[in-house]
Amino acid sequence: MAHRCEALQEIWHRTIPISAAMEVEVVELASGVLTVRAALAPNVNVHGTAFAGSLYSICVLTGWGFCWLELDARGLDAQIVVADARIEYLRPVRGEIVCRCAPDRNELAAELQPLATSGRAAIELDCAITDRQRPAVRFSARYVLQRGR
Amino acid sequence: MAHRCEALQEIWHRTIPISAAMEVEVVELASGVLTVRAALAPNVNVHGTAFAGSLYSICVLTGWGFCWLELDARGLDAQIVVADARIEYLRPVRGEIVCRCAPDRNELAAELQPLATSGRAAIELDCAITDRQRPAVRFSARYVLQRGR
Repeated sequence: MAHRCEALQEIWHRTIPISAAMEVEVVELASGVLTVRAALAPNVNVHGTAFAGSLYSICVLTGWGFCWLELDARGLDAQIVVADARIEYLRPVRGEIVCRCAPDRNELAAELQPLATSGRAAIELDCAITDRQRPAVRFSARYVLQRGR
Repeated sequence: MAHRCEALQEIWHRTIPISAAMEVEVVELASGVLTVRAALAPNVNVHGTAFAGSLYSICVLTGWGFCWLELDARGLDAQIVVADARIEYLRPVRGEIVCRCAPDRNELAAELQPLATSGRAAIELDCAITDRQRPAVRFSARYVLQRGR
């Protein structure tokens, strides 16, 4: 899976300049958990903690990346677009930003089902960022997948 | 007001490196409407339209900036932190990103009231991004203002 994670990171840095400025790195996809990280320095805010916009961006990329890796593993090709999202900031992030996406496999399979029949699917994904093992950010988004575009 | 808008943009670029990478510009605060913009090129995504994370970041900055300018105008000093936010992507943004925040003055005054008495206030702010006069992004966030920090 490592080379697919490298491919994902390469796509981000090449086509989304802000992801390169954020120095976003795909750590691994292991046991159904996608882990993405970024150093604090390029993502700092006026308070010296992680910028709310960077925290959101790393979450929205992690969810998008999870969809991309899932489609890739299934040999499917589809455009992936985020439709809407919600985010809660529970506490400041004072160090490296580490984001995880670990959806329920059965729910994911059910949500992906219409892609084969109608060419379209909507997937709800949650991501979480912790700060020294404590929950710092809760994120939830709906991605729309569309084939043949 | 122009010099306060310049001060706001200077604070962003100096303390939030991603806002500089996004090339975010404070256009004006006029008739209670704060307008912030960014070119598409530094904020582009894999589809050649504006990156969802950049659209969110420009909204969250615009809301934060509105609070900052409002406090500044009232001669108040408080830490401004976003607590939670929701965003809807209605259509892709294919050109310059222009974000506006235009809260109801009476609601804003009522929400700011507790800041003087308890030192804390929570403000709900909506921001909107249009693409060639059509709504493209709807954003709503809750900011917490805290004095003496």
